[in-house]
Amino acid sequence: MTDPVLVEVTRGEVVESVHRGAIAVYDADGKAAWEVGDTTQLVFPRSAVKSIQALPFVESGAADAYGFGQKELALVCASHSGEPQHVDLARSMLAKAGLDETALECGWHWPSNQEATVALARSGGAPNALHNNCSGKHSGFLCTCRHLGIDHRGYVKAGHPEQEMVREAMETVTGAAHDAGHRGTDGCSIPTYAVPLRSFALGFARMATGRGLAPRRAAAAKRLMGACMAEPFFVSGTGRADVGLMQAAPGRIFVKTGAEGVYCGAVPELGLGVAVKCDDGAGRGAEVVVASVLAKLLKSDTALSSRLARIANPPVESRVGAKVGTLRPTAALA
Amino acid sequence: MTDPVLVEVTRGEVVESVHRGAIAVYDADGKAAWEVGDTTQLVFPRSAVKSIQALPFVESGAADAYGFGQKELALVCASHSGEPQHVDLARSMLAKAGLDETALECGWHWPSNQEATVALARSGGAPNALHNNCSGKHSGFLCTCRHLGIDHRGYVKAGHPEQEMVREAMETVTGAAHDAGHRGTDGCSIPTYAVPLRSFALGFARMATGRGLAPRRAAAAKRLMGACMAEPFFVSGTGRADVGLMQAAPGRIFVKTGAEGVYCGAVPELGLGVAVKCDDGAGRGAEVVVASVLAKLLKSDTALSSRLARIANPPVESRVGAKVGTLRPTAALA
Repeated sequence: MTDPVLVEVTRGEVVESVHRGAIAVYDADGKAAWEVGDTTQLVFPRSAVKSIQALPFVESGAADAYGFGQKELALVCASHSGEPQHVDLARSMLAKAGLDETALECGWHWPSNQEATVALARSGGAPNALHNNCSGKHSGFLCTCRHLGIDHRGYVKAGHPEQEMVREAMETVTGAAHDAGHRGTDGCSIPTYAVPLRSFALGFARMATGRGLAPRRAAAAKRLMGACMAEPFFVSGTGRADVGLMQAAPGRIFVKTGAEGVYCGAVPELGLGVAVKCDDGAGRGAEVVVASVLAKLLKSDTALSSRLARIANPPVESRVGAKVGTLRPTAALA
Repeated sequence: MTDPVLVEVTRGEVVESVHRGAIAVYDADGKAAWEVGDTTQLVFPRSAVKSIQALPFVESGAADAYGFGQKELALVCASHSGEPQHVDLARSMLAKAGLDETALECGWHWPSNQEATVALARSGGAPNALHNNCSGKHSGFLCTCRHLGIDHRGYVKAGHPEQEMVREAMETVTGAAHDAGHRGTDGCSIPTYAVPLRSFALGFARMATGRGLAPRRAAAAKRLMGACMAEPFFVSGTGRADVGLMQAAPGRIFVKTGAEGVYCGAVPELGLGVAVKCDDGAGRGAEVVVASVLAKLLKSDTALSSRLARIANPPVESRVGAKVGTLRPTAALA
């Protein structure tokens, strides 16, 4: 099937571009609350499932052994912007495990936050793997290995004990088989598996409610999602959608973006998980979709729903900051 | 109609994302040589038509009066990367007209070339409007105004004599009415008009051949396109697709990217113009499409066609530079 147009990008009175995609909203029992488009399509969740991938870090006792608090737990679930607070926290996590950035196997890039890039360059500095948006997740992997006495070298490779723990957590939570035939390599070099989009909606309903998870796993899920909702800056960065959405209703909304137009989320009070994929991989489209879905799910709270609807209708601006168009959800999202 | 999928983005063995779009290839008499998808859809050409917008700069005599050569002509048609050579040349153009960057009304942003941004920050510098990717085009507008004795203030606004000259050129070359009802504001604050995609293919066939244009216009078109093909770096920047495509066959291929998934081009030896729009606005998709179209049009030159096909199949890489997937044209482009 052809997924419907979910988002329009306008300029003046003309629709300039469109984003198609699919949406799955599920409860923890596997019942669909709302579906749009083909939710059986195989999707790499990319960074949207970092909180699930972080379960072994908590369940193994590593997080407690190193005395990590909510900021560290949030950073392990993060695609951060490489701002100094993110980089410093990742460095301190590795130091507690007796490691430094040379142990990270995620590769490096300049911070996605432009001010951070400019400040780093002005200071005469250069980026390293700590600035990689995934450095928190990888620090969590490394701490888990150190805590469990596993040789951390090659920890990003499929088959390494760390990635086997991650795969087991992903399979258990999403209920979908993660097999080598649908395995790809993520931007940060770890395995990522394409499974039906709806599996992630089910998975995040389970993460948010604990239903269908073993008690220790349910407790770890609650801690990780609670940490993200309490410290959204450490999951994301200045001015980004994850922060705006989670700050719109502290403790009531969990969201996490992933590359290639993926967004996952949960509304614990409703017991629902959300998974979104823009077919074209557009992050700007996925942001509008997830904000619209949340506005719809939470419409009984009219003030909150209005805030979310504003996030779902961001302006398109010129280089002098004039509004020249808008992104907007289509009727398929109404 | 729903445009077909033109490009697939793979990861491992799985298609992760797709780009839909439309393609028009026309000759200068308005005959379609090849069409895919809805080529009647209204499209803002954005920066892909800067060479047409530059016609008054040459026709007015401004380019000659200030002694500009091929590099300056190329820069006036450019979406440059803000590298020092681009910025310096735009500055020198304005200086010849007795102006500086404070006359530019395009707004500013950090260079799109990351090395240029880092070098600028390391030097303690800060960007201004000269670093805007459109500063060459705007310098051309300002030089035209100065040469003709027109007050340049407000030169970006619809109705200003400069923009009326640009609109007349766009209408004449594309054959499509440019009316206020389909007017938007471009990122650099000038008017942009949504007209049928196929109009741009016809327009670039005319630009490349001179057929259907008045002699002075045909001569200006030939100079501008020749300058772009001779100096592709000044139209674009280090490592970018415009440079790679034009350098693949010097003097035989003209291409120009635009925002929101637009690409225009021409193959002068075939007398054909090309216009591409990715429905979702993805530049990566439009690059694959235009490279594939050129490979097809020039297939009788097997060595060149192979080079273009390689450009049409770029790798997806992880942060450590490993190939983890590919972008590839679909059968709709075969």
